[in-house]
Amino acid sequence: MNIPQLDTDTGTRSGASIVLETARDAGVDVCFANPGTTEMPFVGALDTVAGVRSILGLFEGVCTGAADGYGRMAGKPAMTLLHLGPGHANGVANLHNARRARTPILNIVGDHTRDHLKYDAPLTSDIESLARPVSVWYRSVAREADLATDTADAISAAMGAQRGVATLVLPVDLQSVKVRDAASPAVVRPAAESFDHARVERVADLLLSGHRAVLLMGGRALSARGQRAAARIAAATGATCFSETFPARAERGGGLPDIDRLPYFPEPALAALADRRVVLAGALAPVTYFGYEGIPGELARPEDIVMLAEPGDAADEALEALADRIGAPGNAVGVQVERWEVEEGPLTPQAVGRVLANALPDDAIVSIEGGTCGYPFVTASARARRHTILTNTGGAIGQGLPVALGAAVACPERRVFALQSDGSAQYTIQALWTMARERLPIVMLIASNRRYGILQTELARSGLPADTPHASRLTLLDDPPIDWLALSRGYGVAAERASTVQALSQALDAALAHADGPRLIEMCLS
Amino acid sequence: MNIPQLDTDTGTRSGASIVLETARDAGVDVCFANPGTTEMPFVGALDTVAGVRSILGLFEGVCTGAADGYGRMAGKPAMTLLHLGPGHANGVANLHNARRARTPILNIVGDHTRDHLKYDAPLTSDIESLARPVSVWYRSVAREADLATDTADAISAAMGAQRGVATLVLPVDLQSVKVRDAASPAVVRPAAESFDHARVERVADLLLSGHRAVLLMGGRALSARGQRAAARIAAATGATCFSETFPARAERGGGLPDIDRLPYFPEPALAALADRRVVLAGALAPVTYFGYEGIPGELARPEDIVMLAEPGDAADEALEALADRIGAPGNAVGVQVERWEVEEGPLTPQAVGRVLANALPDDAIVSIEGGTCGYPFVTASARARRHTILTNTGGAIGQGLPVALGAAVACPERRVFALQSDGSAQYTIQALWTMARERLPIVMLIASNRRYGILQTELARSGLPADTPHASRLTLLDDPPIDWLALSRGYGVAAERASTVQALSQALDAALAHADGPRLIEMCLS
Repeated sequence: MNIPQLDTDTGTRSGASIVLETARDAGVDVCFANPGTTEMPFVGALDTVAGVRSILGLFEGVCTGAADGYGRMAGKPAMTLLHLGPGHANGVANLHNARRARTPILNIVGDHTRDHLKYDAPLTSDIESLARPVSVWYRSVAREADLATDTADAISAAMGAQRGVATLVLPVDLQSVKVRDAASPAVVRPAAESFDHARVERVADLLLSGHRAVLLMGGRALSARGQRAAARIAAATGATCFSETFPARAERGGGLPDIDRLPYFPEPALAALADRRVVLAGALAPVTYFGYEGIPGELARPEDIVMLAEPGDAADEALEALADRIGAPGNAVGVQVERWEVEEGPLTPQAVGRVLANALPDDAIVSIEGGTCGYPFVTASARARRHTILTNTGGAIGQGLPVALGAAVACPERRVFALQSDGSAQYTIQALWTMARERLPIVMLIASNRRYGILQTELARSGLPADTPHASRLTLLDDPPIDWLALSRGYGVAAERASTVQALSQALDAALAHADGPRLIEMCLS
Repeated sequence: MNIPQLDTDTGTRSGASIVLETARDAGVDVCFANPGTTEMPFVGALDTVAGVRSILGLFEGVCTGAADGYGRMAGKPAMTLLHLGPGHANGVANLHNARRARTPILNIVGDHTRDHLKYDAPLTSDIESLARPVSVWYRSVAREADLATDTADAISAAMGAQRGVATLVLPVDLQSVKVRDAASPAVVRPAAESFDHARVERVADLLLSGHRAVLLMGGRALSARGQRAAARIAAATGATCFSETFPARAERGGGLPDIDRLPYFPEPALAALADRRVVLAGALAPVTYFGYEGIPGELARPEDIVMLAEPGDAADEALEALADRIGAPGNAVGVQVERWEVEEGPLTPQAVGRVLANALPDDAIVSIEGGTCGYPFVTASARARRHTILTNTGGAIGQGLPVALGAAVACPERRVFALQSDGSAQYTIQALWTMARERLPIVMLIASNRRYGILQTELARSGLPADTPHASRLTLLDDPPIDWLALSRGYGVAAERASTVQALSQALDAALAHADGPRLIEMCLS
């Protein structure tokens, strides 16, 4: 491998520099990296191209999850830098979540030199087959002349109508190739987000004719503007409002209306939607999370579904236009910011939700993974100060800590919390190290119940006993108990334990008094 | 989801029970599991079908790597149990290594109910696209009637001529379906391993005509029997012997000949093979690990390569037949077991290799990941007592600890060591917890140099400076330093630190005095 640097004598640049410059000039200025040998020219270019921040992850799922969190908050892509097929594969689970969140990501994967692939060397792998399921766009750069345009095309695709992960494979020889004349700057064209006025008219007619309706909200409908418009519509028409169950991003608190999430389990979700037209505002048609015997997969009949705005549309603007069109009064009443009274005692999930809601400073971001404390927190958080929640959109666990990491990189002026179940935290536990390395003041709250709660719930639903030997062994995490304080210290993160309401409250106050790095609180749940 | 148990009144069994019984009856009796909701009927069946040991991993890469280590030692497949496409994807890196090792694995992946896939629910994923690159065989069970035969076909494929990973997808409705009449027992047919006598004749003619030759050995050639036969051939003909660079499994020490590994870097590998015929005995034709400018990808010219035995052949028997055919004397001299004299002082990689070689009890297994100490250990280990080494066959890092875990499950009577670099250990660090849970007496030696050594080496090779800001940040792991003792305690594993030869020697003695669970030794390298 012969990796040229910027050669000032001859005026050449490396292929990697061209990719980096093109990305940076399109606004992509963060790279979450776990490079290997085939990415070394790209690493070298990070030292010659100014303006791109590189952040190392010890595991690829940390990088891809961080890029997801970053993209949700920044509204533009971060780069990843992954090592061939196996490195990419380690990032697939969180790319799957990013795909469901429609998060723009420029997913850069290094590969062997082009002429080495035919030898089927140990690390040779079918990157395309591994990448297609999570990518809206895939290309392996074939020629030196395409480096800039392929990069621009990737960013355009990530920001396009099918927003999501664009996977750009860079053979190492094209990273290191010396290029004399760079192509003229490649053009990135993000899709413009708009909405369809004819749909607004149809939904208005429906509501004005007295149909009972549910507004099912996702995407930009869950911005503050979208929620206020939805509340106006609800007040004027009696429609109910639900967020999709796992929104990529939703604003909460600070006087916004309390828009609940559509229930996860099918029975209450069916009840919430029964006998109503379901107006989709940036959300997909609701289906059950899993297939359950005797329960329809579609939570609403297709003939009851009405499209107001697609997930990629400006659903907030569509809701405003709808509210105006039906003559809804201009101010909807939101929920006042108010502290919860929480009695001192053991840490129940409900108490955790309320204590955290009380503790949030203005403009906090809360990455939520796991149902144990996640649901009670969202129930409590309508009363909190204004904040943003980020949830697990695709069900691939190990998402919460990396997403918090990426959000903290995107928003250095906001405090970031990770409300995280213990089982799912383990999949990308290495995120702690990067948080410490980057001095990111993230507060992690680990809900330590030492079991896979969702599996025990699903076992019970299915009539299977959870206390038989194998089922127990595969759903319990108590032998040995994970020592979260030790783990956290192992990665350089200060940690403490809280078993009571008062202890958690004090631990949160102590954590918020510092902004010099991450803090972890193990919550021992009752 | 409605999951029937074995119903003694009606004589029905669940589909999952049929899969489990078929696997168990074919000798597959260990399941490395990280299940989710769609695998709950399978979990339930583990409580009704006797004779399958289930072992929980906190991350899928732990499960697949453990299945690789198990299969290499047991010579038969373990099952994995993974959760849809994203769970499978987390296991892909170590399945990639298993594919290169030709390790038989029955890779079971749960999926949605068949009629739920059309709704594209959050966890719906293209499992086939994610699985094909690492699987020699792939099938999603389509019908109740196929459960037993598909399972048997999967095991036959895993043990077939194209030995490797067989991926069997089980929709959850087919796991829970009640089956009245089980099909007659499905038949598993592993491929018989043999060799081609005509090839033996051709190689014998070559050697007897005085051609200089290298025996390049892999697969069964690296058994004790194969190595002894190779040494006879070498003594009789002047041929040199090399192991492939990253063997799945090789016997070492205990009086065996010292057969070195073909060098990793291309220049010394080319020198080792220059001007010789390359006789392949269970190894693939040698190619460079990566593509390097100005260096051929093929380390030997195709016209110089002679096939004695394919990777799936009985290469040890072929070598014996060859030794007999050329009239090589019956006893080749091996290396005597002898302790290295190691002076007290700081821990250099060479000292680590020798101290560990001295400490190995008879029939130890050493899982090696990372070059820093791996190469010096293999150099030293020819003098050790008889042991087996397992190496990283596919280059996807995060392999060493899970492989040690699986080997310990396969061989409870043997002591297992993991000689492991710190950077690669992080990818599947959760393996520690399963080792503690299963009370496996594995001794982990973490080579803590707080950097990605291989990346700094490759940067230096390519003429790029490793001390520029970004290159440093992406190859150094010293900020914060990972506290291995704390991490280890976090997962319930006793740990200590060694910075000198004497301290390491004492720590190894102390670890070997216990057989009640894993021990970790952080080796602070000089």
